[in-house]
Amino acid sequence: MNQKRNTLMANKFEFQIRVYIEDTDAGGIVYHANHIRYMERTRTEWLRASGIDHYWHQRDYNFVVHKIALKYIRPIMMDDMITVTASVVSCKASSFVLQQNIYRGEIMLASGEVELACLNAELRPRRLPDEIRDLILKELEQA
Amino acid sequence: MNQKRNTLMANKFEFQIRVYIEDTDAGGIVYHANHIRYMERTRTEWLRASGIDHYWHQRDYNFVVHKIALKYIRPIMMDDMITVTASVVSCKASSFVLQQNIYRGEIMLASGEVELACLNAELRPRRLPDEIRDLILKELEQA
Amino acid sequence: MNQKRNTLMANKFEFQIRVYIEDTDAGGIVYHANHIRYMERTRTEWLRASGIDHYWHQRDYNFVVHKIALKYIRPIMMDDMITVTASVVSCKASSFVLQQNIYRGEIMLASGEVELACLNAELRPRRLPDEIRDLILKELEQA
Amino acid sequence: MNQKRNTLMANKFEFQIRVYIEDTDAGGIVYHANHIRYMERTRTEWLRASGIDHYWHQRDYNFVVHKIALKYIRPIMMDDMITVTASVVSCKASSFVLQQNIYRGEIMLASGEVELACLNAELRPRRLPDEIRDLILKELEQA
Repeated sequence: MNQKRNTLMANKFEFQIRVYIEDTDAGGIVYHANHIRYMERTRTEWLRASGIDHYWHQRDYNFVVHKIALKYIRPIMMDDMITVTASVVSCKASSFVLQQNIYRGEIMLASGEVELACLNAELRPRRLPDEIRDLILKELEQA
Repeated sequence: MNQKRNTLMANKFEFQIRVYIEDTDAGGIVYHANHIRYMERTRTEWLRASGIDHYWHQRDYNFVVHKIALKYIRPIMMDDMITVTASVVSCKASSFVLQQNIYRGEIMLASGEVELACLNAELRPRRLPDEIRDLILKELEQA
Repeated sequence: MNQKRNTLMANKFEFQIRVYIEDTDAGGIVYHANHIRYMERTRTEWLRASGIDHYWHQRDYNFVVHKIALKYIRPIMMDDMITVTASVVSCKASSFVLQQNIYRGEIMLASGEVELACLNAELRPRRLPDEIRDLILKELEQA
Repeated sequence: MNQKRNTLMANKFEFQIRVYIEDTDAGGIVYHANHIRYMERTRTEWLRASGIDHYWHQRDYNFVVHKIALKYIRPIMMDDMITVTASVVSCKASSFVLQQNIYRGEIMLASGEVELACLNAELRPRRLPDEIRDLILKELEQA
């Protein structure tokens, strides 16, 4: 049986991801760029779980990754069901920072921090849209 | 809310997959090699749903794709929740053929056929293991 | 020393591609969806070598893959320098078919056929642009 | 004409990489995890250019990424020919740090730092092999 759990609680969103063979490399473990993909899937699901369902399809804003820092602690293996988290760390006018960790059960496999910037349709920085700002501030209050 | 459905019934396994931005390309649709990935994820889940949970981690056999034929009918889009199927078409001593289609709701997006060969630890063809052969023959009876 | 060779001759374009660890999977060989990527890189380089350099950036037409059929003959390995070919097989008003094989030296590793359709900006089939049609017909004459 | 340049000089290796459509996403730019892939390709070519040609295929050691920090400055676009650098920053008994930047011509597109650890066949930290240590120390002297 295959199941995914979404948890949206006190500033810690969790999303479960199954690891497939496409994610691994000849070293027998998950290729280190794929951690970055798992983190983005989790951000997308965080927004979806917050009611910002199709942010991708609207035209007024978009997000880009400005900075990423990632520490690889233990390898992720084929067939693993991992849990990826997203917690708001800080927020500015047009950007915010998320902490995103990867776990197998209680064991931390990777720990990262991502800075996301909001751009308008002309790819220039713009203020975070209200619905995103409201979500982020609510989470920060719960931190 | 994000949910995945597994269905194991009369020779038609179904698995739901969410499309993320990593799957798309600058044409605004899913890159055409990623259909192949979705099909393999579905094969892995088909085996898992059939109780062959960790086939990957045992040492006596492995599967390789021998042939693939795929018809792209309509584009798969960012955020789509697609359904990928797997149905046994035929079976030989050391290989078998699956039909695998991709749908958005009732709309067929792609239609493929995959021939898989079973190899031993020395990467030579070997008879399908009994647990796999039993699964395949049971499905063929239900076709 | 790392070198890539482009050959544009009697209806057989060749492009050399280095295999990196990102292309492999935990089976120790190139993941089977990546053959499809190598084939598209080669098509892009075939157009570039034919003077259709930035087809991607113009707005009047685009290509999509309609059908793909691929036979996997031998595994592609980490560090391999492979040669991928492109030869025109046939041509219609708004689509054409390429044969694309993958070699390590003289050894054929995979053999495929790809049907490409030309779409206009509204994603509807349109006649092949003249520059593409001229290229294809010239190659067919040389076949 | 398609050409790749390798430069091995005073602690600054450079490798040129062509961007293909597979590397892009529906935002029209290179997906942000692929920068990490470009950086690893460049590390592999740096070792190859240093005569450590098939390090992957020997059995006594392997490298894993321990930490990565990356700043995305400007988007990488379809068809870009980018230059990725690798310069040794520091070296310990069983790990070393590389600075790796990505350029289009003179324009810096991304700037990163990667810490690599050396593991033995049992996946435990081990001293850098002499050929790697010699290479790194030579480069540090030239810094």
